[in-house]
Amino acid sequence: MLVIITYDVNTTTSEGRRRLRQVSKKCLDYGQRVQNSVFECIVDSTQFRKLKYELVALIDPKTDSLRFYQLGDNYKRKVDHVGAKESFDVEGPLIL
Amino acid sequence: MLVIITYDVNTTTSEGRRRLRQVSKKCLDYGQRVQNSVFECIVDSTQFRKLKYELVALIDPKTDSLRFYQLGDNYKRKVDHVGAKESFDVEGPLIL
Repeated sequence: MLVIITYDVNTTTSEGRRRLRQVSKKCLDYGQRVQNSVFECIVDSTQFRKLKYELVALIDPKTDSLRFYQLGDNYKRKVDHVGAKESFDVEGPLIL
Repeated sequence: MLVIITYDVNTTTSEGRRRLRQVSKKCLDYGQRVQNSVFECIVDSTQFRKLKYELVALIDPKTDSLRFYQLGDNYKRKVDHVGAKESFDVEGPLIL
């Protein structure tokens, strides 16, 4: 299924900037960055639970925010992009 | 239906900062801000087409990026939030 992950991390401190790097690095383990703080991940329900658990452990819930949007398996017609930095289709053919 | 709108606007110029203000103002006309550049809008298909048309007219497609994620009508179990700044339920009871 496709899960959209968006986050706001408070970067006014060096600790916050470290959390931001960790959160985006963790999301990259599971999917692709499509905008500054927006990731698209193709995961099954077990992977999604694990990813969520790992991300929640990284943020400071008092200052940071994570949002998860589940678009299911039939997502291609539900996603639309306009403008710069088109993302690639993670399930599409890999052209070498 | 619930539509998630995420955007990246290039703010290295004053023109870009103006576009950013306009894009977020336009999204506020249709829904609520849930994170810095993430909005949740409850719209019907006609409103969605209009909103998309208006937003595309505001950005510079060479430098800015808009993404639209359609979660449909049955969205409540598809959205999850952890951390600061919980959004309110736009369709929930208004408690005065």
